[in-house]
Amino acid sequence: MAGGLRGGIDLGGTKIQAVVVDAGNRVLGEARHPTPTAGGPRDVAGELVRAMEEAASAAGVPTAELEAVGVGAPGATDARAGTVTSAGNLPGWSGTFPLAQALAEPLGTRIVLGNDVQVATDAEAELGAAREFSSLLGVFWGTGVGGGVVLDGRPWVGRGAAGEIGHVVVKVGGARCPCGRRGCMEAYAGRRAMEDRARRRVEKGERTVLFDLMEHKGRTRLTSGIWARALERDDKLATELIDEALAALGAGVASACNVLDVECVVIGGGLGVRLGEPYAQRIAEAMRPHLFFEEMPVVRTAQLGDLGGAVGAALLARDARELAPA
Amino acid sequence: MAGGLRGGIDLGGTKIQAVVVDAGNRVLGEARHPTPTAGGPRDVAGELVRAMEEAASAAGVPTAELEAVGVGAPGATDARAGTVTSAGNLPGWSGTFPLAQALAEPLGTRIVLGNDVQVATDAEAELGAAREFSSLLGVFWGTGVGGGVVLDGRPWVGRGAAGEIGHVVVKVGGARCPCGRRGCMEAYAGRRAMEDRARRRVEKGERTVLFDLMEHKGRTRLTSGIWARALERDDKLATELIDEALAALGAGVASACNVLDVECVVIGGGLGVRLGEPYAQRIAEAMRPHLFFEEMPVVRTAQLGDLGGAVGAALLARDARELAPA
Repeated sequence: MAGGLRGGIDLGGTKIQAVVVDAGNRVLGEARHPTPTAGGPRDVAGELVRAMEEAASAAGVPTAELEAVGVGAPGATDARAGTVTSAGNLPGWSGTFPLAQALAEPLGTRIVLGNDVQVATDAEAELGAAREFSSLLGVFWGTGVGGGVVLDGRPWVGRGAAGEIGHVVVKVGGARCPCGRRGCMEAYAGRRAMEDRARRRVEKGERTVLFDLMEHKGRTRLTSGIWARALERDDKLATELIDEALAALGAGVASACNVLDVECVVIGGGLGVRLGEPYAQRIAEAMRPHLFFEEMPVVRTAQLGDLGGAVGAALLARDARELAPA
Repeated sequence: MAGGLRGGIDLGGTKIQAVVVDAGNRVLGEARHPTPTAGGPRDVAGELVRAMEEAASAAGVPTAELEAVGVGAPGATDARAGTVTSAGNLPGWSGTFPLAQALAEPLGTRIVLGNDVQVATDAEAELGAAREFSSLLGVFWGTGVGGGVVLDGRPWVGRGAAGEIGHVVVKVGGARCPCGRRGCMEAYAGRRAMEDRARRRVEKGERTVLFDLMEHKGRTRLTSGIWARALERDDKLATELIDEALAALGAGVASACNVLDVECVVIGGGLGVRLGEPYAQRIAEAMRPHLFFEEMPVVRTAQLGDLGGAVGAALLARDARELAPA
């Protein structure tokens, strides 16, 4: 053991972020690798190992001396079994894969799994934007719209998958969501859905700088940075689609708040972090007409930014000892 | 003290239900009085006293020998202060009234206040339809649509008013809700909103038995029984409005479940209890297309029926001793 150092890995659809933190949760080393786009779970696991080794090396510690490594993963995570199921954004990962086992041997330490969005919410609750509150809703506005819930200072995971804020219905019979359902908040506010809407409108003859910026940056997708630049240039189509997203976020987040009555809403995710506090406040404004209570919850941008998921995973490594496979 | 007997009062917009229960929560006596429609909080408090005295008399015990009396009230209840604020459905009750104090002297025992819908949810959790579950959402489908939340076996009240399921948005920019907002679930599913919709459609020339049944019963409002009878007669307008209500309930309750991921949904309230299990199952069917999870929560009708609120208030009298005014 190297004085209570722990590892944390955020396994996302586009990037793998690894950190090593000390007992006070300060980041001592970090590494970011692209998520493999081909192959299968074993290839992804191999990349997680390399990212963690690089972060540990930056912190000057072998991975085997880390107390534990937490992993925040998409899909359905089973902490006790150490498995991840149906991680749809990851290559060849429609089934169940024993991720904890696949990482434990090469890294030489205990592996603890959790849900990516929930651990990012936990990190904001303990170390980030919601430190002074005991109840919060984390809203991660990116490719999709994920959510995490902390109540009475503890994660609320329900039967295992609470916090699916992206699939709160904002319009019965409305737009088709990437999940296949209709009228979900994510159908209007998820970056993937917004890109689909932008493409359809361009095919109908509308003009926008969005795809020019994309090509200029050598990308194949509209990243959060591209949306931000198009907004800075007052691009009409981008502005309209973001306005629709904000309206959907306002209704969906207010709906969740009407049920949960939390003290704080933290807006994170690629778009949430890139667009920052002015857009968090626009979401708050869009919530107000739908909120049943006079007193608004505090609405803030995530403070841990891109590192939140990995730092949250490292918190998981501290808290969930009893759940770790031997 | 008469062997751990407690009182419970459900203060509703149309009726006051009082019960006396023993230590095992069996109902030993009950009384139901109409809620005063004129006057103010003092008149309502007087009627609560008379209903409680009648229930106690039926149980063969003076009210002063009750361990405590719980009251489930609408509006904003402050258990520590013993006050009820903005109980909009009650006459002259827009301000704050010290209800606990007003009842304590005439009844000669401790008074404990709680939210009407939350105590009814607690009763279903401990004694009713959700006994085997530790997390549930109570949906009270009546004049409005109220909700209560139990997580990890304990009421979740948030900043004080969690569970406002009726004001989950199901259609951005949709129908005007009695609360003044747009697109709330209650705008389609609340009995008051449904009656308004029925009246507007009749004014436009549509036919229905709803108002004939109302006049025949000597009522001035479409009660749950009238809706049930119109459905039994296959009344076209009633069927269409109930179908709209079910669609809204399906979307709104599924949205709440996507965030909370509770094990069980209990459908209570005037319409919920009157229409019963077949309609609870129709709500479950309407939820399915919007639920993000493969496994549905269990959806059931409230088992304690009309007595749930009063029995829940009596549970409050047991649990909340530290909150009671001296």
